[in-house]
Amino acid sequence: MTVDATRSAAQLGSSTRVLRPDADRLFPADPATRAIARDLYERIADAPIISPHGHVPVSWIANDHPFADPTELLVTHDHYVTRLLHASGVDLASLGVGGSEVDPRSAWRTFATHWEKFAGTASGYWIREELIEVLGIRTELGPASADRVYDEIARKLEKPEFRPRALFERFGIEVLATTDDPLDDLHDHAAIARSGLPGRVLPTFRPDRYLDPDSEDFSWDVQRLLDATGQPRSFSGYLDALRARREHFIRHGAVSTDHGVEDPYTVDLSDHDAELLFQLVLSDSADEAQRRDFRGHMLLRMAQLSVEDGLVMTVHAGVVRNHSTETHRLFGADSGHDIPRQTDFVRGLRPLLERFGLERSLHLVLFAVDETVYSRELAPMAGFYSSVFVGAPWWFLDAPDAMLRFRSAVTESAGFSRGSGFIDDTRAFLSIPARHDTARRADAAFLARLVGEQRISASTAGRIIDDLVGPQPRRVFKL
Amino acid sequence: MTVDATRSAAQLGSSTRVLRPDADRLFPADPATRAIARDLYERIADAPIISPHGHVPVSWIANDHPFADPTELLVTHDHYVTRLLHASGVDLASLGVGGSEVDPRSAWRTFATHWEKFAGTASGYWIREELIEVLGIRTELGPASADRVYDEIARKLEKPEFRPRALFERFGIEVLATTDDPLDDLHDHAAIARSGLPGRVLPTFRPDRYLDPDSEDFSWDVQRLLDATGQPRSFSGYLDALRARREHFIRHGAVSTDHGVEDPYTVDLSDHDAELLFQLVLSDSADEAQRRDFRGHMLLRMAQLSVEDGLVMTVHAGVVRNHSTETHRLFGADSGHDIPRQTDFVRGLRPLLERFGLERSLHLVLFAVDETVYSRELAPMAGFYSSVFVGAPWWFLDAPDAMLRFRSAVTESAGFSRGSGFIDDTRAFLSIPARHDTARRADAAFLARLVGEQRISASTAGRIIDDLVGPQPRRVFKL
Amino acid sequence: MTVDATRSAAQLGSSTRVLRPDADRLFPADPATRAIARDLYERIADAPIISPHGHVPVSWIANDHPFADPTELLVTHDHYVTRLLHASGVDLASLGVGGSEVDPRSAWRTFATHWEKFAGTASGYWIREELIEVLGIRTELGPASADRVYDEIARKLEKPEFRPRALFERFGIEVLATTDDPLDDLHDHAAIARSGLPGRVLPTFRPDRYLDPDSEDFSWDVQRLLDATGQPRSFSGYLDALRARREHFIRHGAVSTDHGVEDPYTVDLSDHDAELLFQLVLSDSADEAQRRDFRGHMLLRMAQLSVEDGLVMTVHAGVVRNHSTETHRLFGADSGHDIPRQTDFVRGLRPLLERFGLERSLHLVLFAVDETVYSRELAPMAGFYSSVFVGAPWWFLDAPDAMLRFRSAVTESAGFSRGSGFIDDTRAFLSIPARHDTARRADAAFLARLVGEQRISASTAGRIIDDLVGPQPRRVFKL
Repeated sequence: MTVDATRSAAQLGSSTRVLRPDADRLFPADPATRAIARDLYERIADAPIISPHGHVPVSWIANDHPFADPTELLVTHDHYVTRLLHASGVDLASLGVGGSEVDPRSAWRTFATHWEKFAGTASGYWIREELIEVLGIRTELGPASADRVYDEIARKLEKPEFRPRALFERFGIEVLATTDDPLDDLHDHAAIARSGLPGRVLPTFRPDRYLDPDSEDFSWDVQRLLDATGQPRSFSGYLDALRARREHFIRHGAVSTDHGVEDPYTVDLSDHDAELLFQLVLSDSADEAQRRDFRGHMLLRMAQLSVEDGLVMTVHAGVVRNHSTETHRLFGADSGHDIPRQTDFVRGLRPLLERFGLERSLHLVLFAVDETVYSRELAPMAGFYSSVFVGAPWWFLDAPDAMLRFRSAVTESAGFSRGSGFIDDTRAFLSIPARHDTARRADAAFLARLVGEQRISASTAGRIIDDLVGPQPRRVFKL
Repeated sequence: MTVDATRSAAQLGSSTRVLRPDADRLFPADPATRAIARDLYERIADAPIISPHGHVPVSWIANDHPFADPTELLVTHDHYVTRLLHASGVDLASLGVGGSEVDPRSAWRTFATHWEKFAGTASGYWIREELIEVLGIRTELGPASADRVYDEIARKLEKPEFRPRALFERFGIEVLATTDDPLDDLHDHAAIARSGLPGRVLPTFRPDRYLDPDSEDFSWDVQRLLDATGQPRSFSGYLDALRARREHFIRHGAVSTDHGVEDPYTVDLSDHDAELLFQLVLSDSADEAQRRDFRGHMLLRMAQLSVEDGLVMTVHAGVVRNHSTETHRLFGADSGHDIPRQTDFVRGLRPLLERFGLERSLHLVLFAVDETVYSRELAPMAGFYSSVFVGAPWWFLDAPDAMLRFRSAVTESAGFSRGSGFIDDTRAFLSIPARHDTARRADAAFLARLVGEQRISASTAGRIIDDLVGPQPRRVFKL
Repeated sequence: MTVDATRSAAQLGSSTRVLRPDADRLFPADPATRAIARDLYERIADAPIISPHGHVPVSWIANDHPFADPTELLVTHDHYVTRLLHASGVDLASLGVGGSEVDPRSAWRTFATHWEKFAGTASGYWIREELIEVLGIRTELGPASADRVYDEIARKLEKPEFRPRALFERFGIEVLATTDDPLDDLHDHAAIARSGLPGRVLPTFRPDRYLDPDSEDFSWDVQRLLDATGQPRSFSGYLDALRARREHFIRHGAVSTDHGVEDPYTVDLSDHDAELLFQLVLSDSADEAQRRDFRGHMLLRMAQLSVEDGLVMTVHAGVVRNHSTETHRLFGADSGHDIPRQTDFVRGLRPLLERFGLERSLHLVLFAVDETVYSRELAPMAGFYSSVFVGAPWWFLDAPDAMLRFRSAVTESAGFSRGSGFIDDTRAFLSIPARHDTARRADAAFLARLVGEQRISASTAGRIIDDLVGPQPRRVFKL
């Protein structure tokens, strides 16, 4: 370690132009603790990747087309990246967001010019790892090197070993879950299953638009759902339609459903009251409180269906979507303007847990962007209800320091066994290894501290980290 | 320290079967800081235990019966333990919770099977310390060793030196406060006081059930209170009844009252309005807002009585009790299903503080399970009002990392002098030394960092840690 | 570092009587990380001080009178100090708060008696640095040394080199912003500008009392504003009056406006509705919701005026002012009884950001005392809106540990470029160098950890810290 420290101190003021992988990245500086972290990390550094929730388009794996260009691959569709560029004064249109026509090289130069602004961010870590480890780039990105790096990447992307399926294999992915519309026929998933890919690509049932009266085209979407399943326009028909589509997903390997809600509010209603509310919201005559109740009731009903069919239920709560109406209008959803807010899982989910919280077959994985809930709400809930699991740090919190805060906040009351395992939740296919590696290093760093402080033995820490990367997500997601 | 670090790194992958006490447990890994922490800790490692708030049944000390068996002692009644077992799929009934008949050895085996799930939790630390330091067990607990450890403990529990009073003496307890019903005659406390025990056992006045219209049997409890004190069914009679019982507690050595509220809401009312509200809630015709106002007003009145009679007032706020109605029905209260929620002390307590916050005789100690209030609310309030003290990290936060977060959050605006001193708040009698030791080590670790970072001198740190373990709780609790 | 650690350990139990500057103050204990921190710090230790927001009375610089006495200078007007003394049982009157007559030496003795209670607090750090670095005191403050230290300081204050302008120059202040009433004629600022002071003293437009219907004398203040600018009693006249005064400030060098609000709530209204509400609040017939709406609308209008005239807009939100009515009555505002509360920037500021959030010319700097907003609200907002900047840790959070929590919470999603730069926000003129030095050391410590953990290169860290102390605040505050 002395060597590293000296190197770092010596480099101060000089400019590093050559990228190198850092073997001890993210490990604590204290030499004894770092040695423990390294030992722990080495146990699981090469374990297969289990990714039970994410947003990689299934067509990428099914079609196996080469990636278009460096900008398309690393910039345009990564809202972590475009949002910080936007904050830095870059026009989203100039990056190709929302389908704008753009010269990819010119957009890449813009990105390179602002690259140092990502220092210390999660995206900065991931992209640096992607450049080094996945793409084999050894040149530090910057305004002067922008074109050179662009060309190097572009050349790589033409090679067969940089196509999605080759990378899938190289990354050692055991399971990759996509996120899909309930009416998706899932033929891409079926094709991949038949294709002999050494790993599974599973669909995930994401029904938000069919459950939330405030979503655009809600009534129309519900009608399409009823039509597709031949169900009548009644609440029980609606439930049966959802059941049928979940069954379709299960037949294609799905293990979970996903629910994105601003507020994890639930409400229990009788079938009779649900029917009345269903007709109200469909006829567009429900007021705000009634629409909220419908949405909240449907979240509870999804738990009911999960108890019936065994699908794991993940809830991603607490994000105000499309905070900027103007950029939403210009660039569409998911263009970087979603902002977290305070979240109350304890009172919000109580009706759901009163009904189904003690069911052994229910697995409810809760993801938060309001980190105050870790010690106050999620760990205490997952430390009592066998159905509740604490989701890995999500989105704005999917980063090394936040991961350490998460472990610190959750572990002392719920231990390590009540977590979800790491979830990358990403569309950025190339970042998957870097994201899992970051989580593994952060866990090694956290456990090393516990060992170094004589809180747990090294052998216990070893068993825990072994569990975190494989058995835990397989158990939680019923893989 | 090199030795420890090497040992830990070497053990990686091998399995530690022999338990040993870890002299540097919880101290920071950096060798220089660890040396400072050790020096600080050694000043106060053997200081007498002052426990001004807790839940040890007074009868244990009064009757001095041997503990029944290892399961009864360490598992069944410890809701920190049973809740995580329940989350892991264990039926609460199989652990004897709620009075279920159970074979203690079989329940112990269940506990042993799940023991590694407690790694990194507060309970994991405490129980390991109890096994090593109190019970002298040298065998690591696990499925294979369950019976052996059970038998070893069971043999110990038959010996006179493991009876409650012998342990009380061995633990070096100077003061132990119990928590008691206002109508308790306190004869056990009186008997202990006469018995020559080298340490004081004090009652604590906990009147929640007589103050909260939403508690079961509220009207009946209030009537019992009035009958016991010969008071009329009026608000002033009710206040006088409370005064009389507080007086009874003071005569038996009580120094404090305790108040468990979900929401630290207070409201100031005239005597006239209070009388009207009193009659409303007693006649069961108050609506939710009125019942909340009554409860909030009574918290304020308790501050008034504290100003009159000098009893320290502790408030434990922010827990949703019995989050699961079903387990409450089957197993009763305090069976692990209490969950924290967001808490607002600043606006909630303002009416109380407007009336009594500047009173020199009032000591109001605020305990939170929502750690966001530490830097935002409690430290700023205790840093202005001489009546307000920041309670030590409570319940889900009574653990090493949370203690360090607490000190970090509170100290920079309120310093060390505005805290309560450590409060174990436990029914788990055998864990008392481990809990105080954990707090002392965490404080030594925190102060060592400040010294190592040249923020305070080592001599100042020494004086501070000396104060924290004895003078501070004596001062705050008027001992 | 071994030397320091040994020294600290050796001193344990002995009493340090001699103050010395600690070269590695606030740097992490790990030797390798500390070396990196020291290198980073040395780059910027002597950089000029840019203070774009604070409360130093402009008359001090304009008149250049000697400071009255040590108590007046360091105790009476520093509400960080008086509040903790008050919490410790000291009568505010005995410290001279609120204009009470007091013997300064006697108040100083009181302060000295309680001095050790400031150990570990931000004020403790600052004042110690002021005593050592600014005033050249080498005697540790305490009850025994109180008079000696008082006399030493008093002697210094008589010397010309301890007058405000000499200190201003010695401190290396490049820019110092004061905070001023919109009707202030700013002749002191004009005089300073003409005086040849080597540094700028800029006014800041702080219009709260003219915008908040709940402020004392609101209607009268608005009338004064209209009279001063010759505007009619209409909403557009009122806006023009504000415009005119902002113009006056700009002519005197102002670069920003400042807004202190309990709740960062905004609401967008048409000119017509604003006119109606304006007449309502002026005629004192608006209810609470209407007064809130007016206040919230005016915050939005201030953003509009900032878009027009380019003044940077700072918002300091989340403090319940005058929590204790009694001390407010006796000692006035700003006497230590302001307490933070939960804050919601995301929903509160949405209307403002919907209107002006995408404007390139708007700079909106958000300061919080509820640190939960850092990772949840401020970093995500500043990581998308180019108009939003995350204000440096403020007031109760302006302290080393809180700064490290701030960097940890903000950096991983927003990086370093979206902050405000350090803001001292102080009236305590002598503490300015210590406050900036503390922030520089904390940033060096944070960056050193990232380098030590191989997250960023040392050269990147160097460029970042260079930016933080100068270019960043100049950019954000348009200096």
